[in-house]
Amino acid sequence: MAVKLVEKLESSFEDMVAIRRYLHMHPEVSFQETKTAKYIQDFYTNLSIPFQANVGGNGVVARIKGALPGKTVALRADFDALPIQDEKDVEYKSTVAGVMHACGHDGHTAALLILARTINELKEQLSGEYVFIHQHAEEYAPGGARPMIDAGCLEGVDVIFGTHLWSLTPLGTIEYKSGAIMAAADRFEIVIQGSGGHGANPHQSKDAIVVASQLVVNLQQLVSRRVNPTEAAVLSVGSFVAENAFNIIADSAKLSGTVRTFNPEVRDLMEQELERVIKGTCMTADCTYTLTYDRGYPPVINHPAETEFLEKVAKEVPGVEKVEESILHMIGEDFGYYMEKISGTFFFTGAMPEGEVYPHHSPKFDFDERAMLIAAKTLGTAAMKYQTQ
Amino acid sequence: MAVKLVEKLESSFEDMVAIRRYLHMHPEVSFQETKTAKYIQDFYTNLSIPFQANVGGNGVVARIKGALPGKTVALRADFDALPIQDEKDVEYKSTVAGVMHACGHDGHTAALLILARTINELKEQLSGEYVFIHQHAEEYAPGGARPMIDAGCLEGVDVIFGTHLWSLTPLGTIEYKSGAIMAAADRFEIVIQGSGGHGANPHQSKDAIVVASQLVVNLQQLVSRRVNPTEAAVLSVGSFVAENAFNIIADSAKLSGTVRTFNPEVRDLMEQELERVIKGTCMTADCTYTLTYDRGYPPVINHPAETEFLEKVAKEVPGVEKVEESILHMIGEDFGYYMEKISGTFFFTGAMPEGEVYPHHSPKFDFDERAMLIAAKTLGTAAMKYQTQ
Amino acid sequence: MAVKLVEKLESSFEDMVAIRRYLHMHPEVSFQETKTAKYIQDFYTNLSIPFQANVGGNGVVARIKGALPGKTVALRADFDALPIQDEKDVEYKSTVAGVMHACGHDGHTAALLILARTINELKEQLSGEYVFIHQHAEEYAPGGARPMIDAGCLEGVDVIFGTHLWSLTPLGTIEYKSGAIMAAADRFEIVIQGSGGHGANPHQSKDAIVVASQLVVNLQQLVSRRVNPTEAAVLSVGSFVAENAFNIIADSAKLSGTVRTFNPEVRDLMEQELERVIKGTCMTADCTYTLTYDRGYPPVINHPAETEFLEKVAKEVPGVEKVEESILHMIGEDFGYYMEKISGTFFFTGAMPEGEVYPHHSPKFDFDERAMLIAAKTLGTAAMKYQTQ
Amino acid sequence: MAVKLVEKLESSFEDMVAIRRYLHMHPEVSFQETKTAKYIQDFYTNLSIPFQANVGGNGVVARIKGALPGKTVALRADFDALPIQDEKDVEYKSTVAGVMHACGHDGHTAALLILARTINELKEQLSGEYVFIHQHAEEYAPGGARPMIDAGCLEGVDVIFGTHLWSLTPLGTIEYKSGAIMAAADRFEIVIQGSGGHGANPHQSKDAIVVASQLVVNLQQLVSRRVNPTEAAVLSVGSFVAENAFNIIADSAKLSGTVRTFNPEVRDLMEQELERVIKGTCMTADCTYTLTYDRGYPPVINHPAETEFLEKVAKEVPGVEKVEESILHMIGEDFGYYMEKISGTFFFTGAMPEGEVYPHHSPKFDFDERAMLIAAKTLGTAAMKYQTQ
Repeated sequence: MAVKLVEKLESSFEDMVAIRRYLHMHPEVSFQETKTAKYIQDFYTNLSIPFQANVGGNGVVARIKGALPGKTVALRADFDALPIQDEKDVEYKSTVAGVMHACGHDGHTAALLILARTINELKEQLSGEYVFIHQHAEEYAPGGARPMIDAGCLEGVDVIFGTHLWSLTPLGTIEYKSGAIMAAADRFEIVIQGSGGHGANPHQSKDAIVVASQLVVNLQQLVSRRVNPTEAAVLSVGSFVAENAFNIIADSAKLSGTVRTFNPEVRDLMEQELERVIKGTCMTADCTYTLTYDRGYPPVINHPAETEFLEKVAKEVPGVEKVEESILHMIGEDFGYYMEKISGTFFFTGAMPEGEVYPHHSPKFDFDERAMLIAAKTLGTAAMKYQTQ
Repeated sequence: MAVKLVEKLESSFEDMVAIRRYLHMHPEVSFQETKTAKYIQDFYTNLSIPFQANVGGNGVVARIKGALPGKTVALRADFDALPIQDEKDVEYKSTVAGVMHACGHDGHTAALLILARTINELKEQLSGEYVFIHQHAEEYAPGGARPMIDAGCLEGVDVIFGTHLWSLTPLGTIEYKSGAIMAAADRFEIVIQGSGGHGANPHQSKDAIVVASQLVVNLQQLVSRRVNPTEAAVLSVGSFVAENAFNIIADSAKLSGTVRTFNPEVRDLMEQELERVIKGTCMTADCTYTLTYDRGYPPVINHPAETEFLEKVAKEVPGVEKVEESILHMIGEDFGYYMEKISGTFFFTGAMPEGEVYPHHSPKFDFDERAMLIAAKTLGTAAMKYQTQ
Repeated sequence: MAVKLVEKLESSFEDMVAIRRYLHMHPEVSFQETKTAKYIQDFYTNLSIPFQANVGGNGVVARIKGALPGKTVALRADFDALPIQDEKDVEYKSTVAGVMHACGHDGHTAALLILARTINELKEQLSGEYVFIHQHAEEYAPGGARPMIDAGCLEGVDVIFGTHLWSLTPLGTIEYKSGAIMAAADRFEIVIQGSGGHGANPHQSKDAIVVASQLVVNLQQLVSRRVNPTEAAVLSVGSFVAENAFNIIADSAKLSGTVRTFNPEVRDLMEQELERVIKGTCMTADCTYTLTYDRGYPPVINHPAETEFLEKVAKEVPGVEKVEESILHMIGEDFGYYMEKISGTFFFTGAMPEGEVYPHHSPKFDFDERAMLIAAKTLGTAAMKYQTQ
Repeated sequence: MAVKLVEKLESSFEDMVAIRRYLHMHPEVSFQETKTAKYIQDFYTNLSIPFQANVGGNGVVARIKGALPGKTVALRADFDALPIQDEKDVEYKSTVAGVMHACGHDGHTAALLILARTINELKEQLSGEYVFIHQHAEEYAPGGARPMIDAGCLEGVDVIFGTHLWSLTPLGTIEYKSGAIMAAADRFEIVIQGSGGHGANPHQSKDAIVVASQLVVNLQQLVSRRVNPTEAAVLSVGSFVAENAFNIIADSAKLSGTVRTFNPEVRDLMEQELERVIKGTCMTADCTYTLTYDRGYPPVINHPAETEFLEKVAKEVPGVEKVEESILHMIGEDFGYYMEKISGTFFFTGAMPEGEVYPHHSPKFDFDERAMLIAAKTLGTAAMKYQTQ
């Protein structure tokens, strides 16, 4: 049956490309992707596949039952775009100023839609049930996964699979990894409150720029001294703003940044030590502070059995030339929420384009569209073989 | 004769107040003070006192010759205002939105105009010549003093006296100081150029915020380690801007600040060491930088003989209750340019108002108008007594 | 045959303990372990097992040929002790003041000697050749492994296995790890040269303490900003000496420390960036420096096939209750040199004692002697099964 | 009478040199200068001048009453040497290994002894009383001045004068200064307590070297940001010791240093802010600390009237070619204690030798002996003229 699925998908490649290019030309940013949701709904409506709309926001969930009994397998694709101006010179360039599918979610959606259509065509011979989770708002915390779960998208689901097309990995490669694969991504904002004055009279003020600078320097010690060196962790201060005339002493300074971790204990440690360092640094200069620490997505922790299963399946998928262990990614994904609830695995599908390669979120980002076909075949094969696993 | 001058000035106090209040209601910022200049010109025209307009910009210079031979004494008052919104609740509040005489230059001008009128009335009995320098643009480097000097305002002048009304010093006090009294005020701008990236991947970028923070910390060592501790020096970074999303690595950071010194060697040292520290700090992280260092006003260095003379004169001026040595002021004044050319001294005239006291450049700044009379009497007496000194 | 080996080893446990305790009572520090070497030589001499003495120093290499053809398998045990005063209260306490087997090398040696004796007894039924590498000087770089290799101890050897008894891992557990398992351990010394003076006059000197302190702070950025966060790296400054009277400015400061890495590229990066940070930091204060960077042992990088083989073998060894993946160890081992030449794997044998547990290199360190038996059985079984692998 | 004094002193120059050279060859360190005290006592005994020995330690106080009534004037000379090895190549080189008159106190004592002898010869014609304070232990806090005052050396004294021979000031110059002339000199010791560990595992320890380094860096901000830039202040960390093996994390670090100030408020501020910075810096890394802050000598604050008097007197002393204002000295002197009790002034007597000049406390320090004569003449003239002042 997996063979038939693969053949059917291969013969649908042009449809996949068409869908992807349409979506690419009509991107919508996170939490505002209503037209894209409508497009997905229409697709299912036209095929008379039952679905639920507005799941936890703009999410769409379609379900296809095979004729034979079996397990319930969920497959997930995200569909939001980014607030980036498309700088590519291609026919299917974004038509929306300042908005672009710069991460490949258009490809995820096209692959999943065609896969759903194909499974629908085969459903009389299939066991189990197939749940197609079209998730909104992956790019922007708090993300769409959690509200979709809260709205019931995982009800009755036994396992979930998801993939990300990856422009930095060669076409034909599937990257799996048991355990942590993508990082928890937290955000913090710090305001250092000193007291301003004339730049000529530092002793009459408390220089917030000096204290905030000292803080940035001190914060380097979290990763270098506090975290087990065999654990991955990042703390980056991305923004430092204390904008004033040149001849004054800054009254306050505002910092914001991100913390990335995999291990929950390291995540707790970083949050706790961050505040310790702020408190001590402010004390040295008798300043005060406010700290806001927002926990973003949890890390994506792949389940070992499902990952091993996926690794084996992938090796037999036509078009897959290499199956290898993924590196750890310090970036985040809200796919981790699903796997806090049920078993599953998240993998990368190589999508490196010919010619120049741009990283995800670049204004010139693009991918090799043949990767969509590999993603669909791998997800579909996994879903089917999981029935007899 | 000095007695007669003092009496005449005392009987003109109301005129002085009227002029000051008119100017206070019609402030103009540095280099744009054309109506104020016209007001001064009209004053001299009405009295048939010869003057030169547009001296080095908006400057006005009037000259009154006594009947008897003698020295040529210059007296200077500045007349520009500040880009500050007047927040006082008085009848003579500024009528110009966002512009205010928040430093007392209106008072300086009123005092000097009435002093000129009085000297003009006495000129048949006076020795020497009196030069009234009405200077524009004291508040904003490069200032009005230098172009006025270049335009000849000091030609033939033997000595110059100037004063600043000072709201933090009690009424009735005159503060003199031999040698340095006000600081050289320089400005610098630094751009640290790193290379940006995703906050999750610090190793792929060069974090300009970390380097700039390190720089701010390192710069503290200029004052604490490089400068002779018995010399006064200040380096303040007033602005630090690297505004970005929280989850990126900053590509660049922009700092600006001020350096204050009295001793020319210390000034040179600070400029040289500033660049050394920037260069080394950037090298630690393989970043580059641009540095712009603009020398502002020179320090105000009072000449010892003229200062001693002024100290003695002040003690005999009616209304002066206390004559004491001034502290060093880390703020700047372009009066220093005059004294690089000829002898003279600059002193402070106590002008602390009754009730709440606000510092200069505060939106609620005001001063006790009686201080104008003391300033005029002290300047006028000094000018006359200098003839026989 | 492996069954017979295991039985014979089990019945030799008391001999193993006796040897270990003798060695424990007579420890010798690295490069001076001549009596221990003699003890090992005598052991082989008594059994008429051929060996080579003084291999690359104090090393001893014995070779036993099975009757049947096969592969040549090397097994390694180190035999040096540490300059630590034994603080244990046991009968077999060190009899040498200030010297102690505080890392378990006595156990390694006892296990390997008894294993060699046992294999010798079975040699008529065995395939292949068995090489017993008794290595001196593991504790002190540049170590004994390299000169033993240079002297030919690996000639004709197909594979090598080694283990470390580990007091922090429960008895009965074997820990394997493919790829990096122990770190490269480098050493650096830095002398910052400023110029001294009286503490009252900082401007007449270049304060080496301030510069060296700045350097320690700056060096935190290597791990936090320069190294890929998914790679493990450590830089620790262990010593900072600038000892002077309280009222002077330090002329110079001496730092020494260690760098730990697994990935050769990260190792190169750390060395290169270390010097960059030193150079830049010294430049900020016009100081000079000398840097000595000594590369210590390479990382121990286990070969995947041999590690997988060992993992399987270990699971079948009687007495082994748990076989699990090891953590990464930031400490070093010169076993890595062997595996730069030939295939092999290095694993940990749980040796946690009952009662209080002390870490390796503690003056109270001890281990559960039954772990020696497990180590010998695992090494021996692996060596035999490798013939038919 | 002053003329006669000067003549007599000039004719005693050779005696002065002889005494100085004897003392130079027999130096004794602070608080152990018993033979020097005996030498001074013998001098007075031989002249039948009454004195008190063992005043507050090794101090000696002689008193000579003039025949006529008048004021009581004290003159002070210190007589201790330093723990420095004499490296000069002269006949009168120190005969005591490791001890040397490297600051000129031998010259102070020789000048005062001959001055006392001379005044004694003139006493029948003199008014007032003359108190010769020979003070021990100036070089080492808590110093000899305080216990000598406690023991009554200032009883009945109206005024005190003292001088320091100064090798960096040309012979013939007297330097006076009203108000602060020499700094308060305090001492601090800080121990940072972290927790040690293996250099490979920073997360299991609290790195005292990183915290202490951070502290040294942070302490720069006291002078650069907290102290009024027109006030002089110094904080120098002279010693930083955390001596360990290269591959460990430091358990603790010990810093010691000095704080120099003139203004008592600045002194209080520095002490208070020092602890604030230590506390905050330790908090950032969860370390603890101990701080010992010992206040050393107070600043030397010259009284204005006595300083003006001395300035005038000095101008008329034969041999004095130049009388000018002294710079501020950041070094300390316990002469300040006397002037906390009574009026007086402390001045510098130029003593720059011909040839190479070495600073005070250098192992090659020497001075032009003719400066002793100038010092004696100036002190003696001041003492006499003070009677009629």
